[in-house]
Amino acid sequence: MALEWLPAAITDLDRTGLLRTPRAPLAGPGPYVELDGRRLLNLCSNDYLSLAALPVESDTAGAGASRLVGGHQRAHAELEQGIARWLQLEACLLFTSGYAANVGALSALAGPDTLIVSDAQNHASIVDGCRLGRARVAVVPHLDLAATAEALRRAPEHKRIVATDGYFSMDGDRPDLVGLRALCDETGAALYVDEAHALGVYGPEGRGACAAAGVRPDVLVGTLGKAFGAAGAFVAGTPELVLWLWNRARSFVFSTGTPAALATTALRRLPLLRDGVRTRRLHANAASLRAQLARAGVTVLAGSEGPIIPVVLGDPRRAVAAAEQLATRGLFVHPMRPPTVAVGTSRLRITVQADHAPSDLERAAADIATAVS
Amino acid sequence: MALEWLPAAITDLDRTGLLRTPRAPLAGPGPYVELDGRRLLNLCSNDYLSLAALPVESDTAGAGASRLVGGHQRAHAELEQGIARWLQLEACLLFTSGYAANVGALSALAGPDTLIVSDAQNHASIVDGCRLGRARVAVVPHLDLAATAEALRRAPEHKRIVATDGYFSMDGDRPDLVGLRALCDETGAALYVDEAHALGVYGPEGRGACAAAGVRPDVLVGTLGKAFGAAGAFVAGTPELVLWLWNRARSFVFSTGTPAALATTALRRLPLLRDGVRTRRLHANAASLRAQLARAGVTVLAGSEGPIIPVVLGDPRRAVAAAEQLATRGLFVHPMRPPTVAVGTSRLRITVQADHAPSDLERAAADIATAVS
Repeated sequence: MALEWLPAAITDLDRTGLLRTPRAPLAGPGPYVELDGRRLLNLCSNDYLSLAALPVESDTAGAGASRLVGGHQRAHAELEQGIARWLQLEACLLFTSGYAANVGALSALAGPDTLIVSDAQNHASIVDGCRLGRARVAVVPHLDLAATAEALRRAPEHKRIVATDGYFSMDGDRPDLVGLRALCDETGAALYVDEAHALGVYGPEGRGACAAAGVRPDVLVGTLGKAFGAAGAFVAGTPELVLWLWNRARSFVFSTGTPAALATTALRRLPLLRDGVRTRRLHANAASLRAQLARAGVTVLAGSEGPIIPVVLGDPRRAVAAAEQLATRGLFVHPMRPPTVAVGTSRLRITVQADHAPSDLERAAADIATAVS
Repeated sequence: MALEWLPAAITDLDRTGLLRTPRAPLAGPGPYVELDGRRLLNLCSNDYLSLAALPVESDTAGAGASRLVGGHQRAHAELEQGIARWLQLEACLLFTSGYAANVGALSALAGPDTLIVSDAQNHASIVDGCRLGRARVAVVPHLDLAATAEALRRAPEHKRIVATDGYFSMDGDRPDLVGLRALCDETGAALYVDEAHALGVYGPEGRGACAAAGVRPDVLVGTLGKAFGAAGAFVAGTPELVLWLWNRARSFVFSTGTPAALATTALRRLPLLRDGVRTRRLHANAASLRAQLARAGVTVLAGSEGPIIPVVLGDPRRAVAAAEQLATRGLFVHPMRPPTVAVGTSRLRITVQADHAPSDLERAAADIATAVS
């Protein structure tokens, strides 16, 4: 059990009167709130002008306060339960963004007594979470299982976390999650997987790279801003993990709750990730564009797969020029440059979508070939 | 000029091909986007399943990508312009939360060569921003102008930032902003003010504590999750500041753009902050409850003013018990405990709203007096 120190840490909080547990979710924000079926005068909100209860679409825009204070709403609880069930994990906690999720979770889980083994291509928010957590960080070469093993075996730290993206947003590749899981089990490390770009894309019912590999991570981070097409993020795992984060993830504790309108929107979209209809169209489009690019002689990054198609050009100015040329041909492509990618690896990061028309992708390949030649 | 190193730093980025500038905002997300009046096939979004363009209310829920990539939308630009005009500052940049704004801005502005003088009661996100920025941090006693002066005068660092809340969320008091501005001017420090709890509450047109004091900060942080009743946040200041943050604030760079629905919602609410109608009701309610509490013999924290009314009880369990008792009387009050407040200062943090009925606040004072006696 990788996070076996959690129950004792929670007990410690409880003993000193500092443990927070979610109260019954509120029906909504406002000067008066309903809690457990009773109407209360709300005296703990930051919604000073009583505006949070004004509607957007089907739900409200503002939670009015931190979830810990007066901002915990039904829409949050319903979405968290829905996500946990979907991912076949026990519990889930919403964050305002993927950045907040990784920074909050890693800094809450790590300390000076912790080793975090982090893939060199991990997302910036993992890097910042490691830094904020004051852990010792061993950055290992991209996808290098042997280096990860070496870092773990030499570690004097009792607390160990192996952090990786499930589907790397810039390189479009996936780690050996079966290998990492085995390594974590051997060495008592927690497997921490950021599935931001893999949910809705890989795995049965779009459950991500871990599900695709048949692996259960200790901490699964996901986002609502990618395949969900909304905004916000979450961390899923055991109830202890979620309770610890509720208490100690500072980006969660010290932020106003997710807008109910976003939570409701995400919940309504979950069936669209699960049914696989759009996911199949996405992969057909990705395969088609990849085939067309190969025929046109464009080299895509080795090891990449799926809808993220990186074409590395090296110099940032070259990437910018290629993107500008593509814009004149009707293609909206972004040049990725440092610090988003490593120096010398500036690139076009081409991503396809489910609703791209196949005919447009055929046309695109020829234009891309011209722009990068 | 406190941030005089910014133009040269931006020029450096430009020279190496790494400068980002906002492109023309998109009308919306989706597989096809309109840019400068032209329809483009969108190949740079994370909106893999083409869901981001499905509507919530009056606008969309997902930006689909980082603002730097393909997620910069008209709704963002309009809100940023609206906020900048309102605050009589030149430019503004949206963040996904106040936590993200402070962490992103401070870590982007600070480095190992920077001193940040930080009030002991500053919000947790300022604390984390200081830590992430690797600055030297001088924590000064709450509201202590002399200690701030002393820290600045002894500082060997060339880059100096004085960071403070405009209206402290736990203590309900305000710093001497005129004094801090003068001190910053004397010592070449940047004045960084988090107006999260002051916007819509203090100052002409609800422009905050700085406006109330006639002071122009170098960096003004605000939130859309408090008086705006929505979610998200922003940083306002000079165009150079915003451009630097667009390039270097990692919580901004590495996050999906703010949902347009939230930006649109916030923009539509701005007139409600400016006209002062709700703000006047808020202050009338705050004055009424404060008077009733005084009559009932309840001691509120000395120096506190306005809608944040702290009643310090000391022990966290006592605060929890008082809140529980108040709930049985129909009052929703939150017990604030460490780490949100300092050890030994657990409290009821009572906040009033514009739409509270005066008769309910009268009743509340008596119940609070009973619960804390």
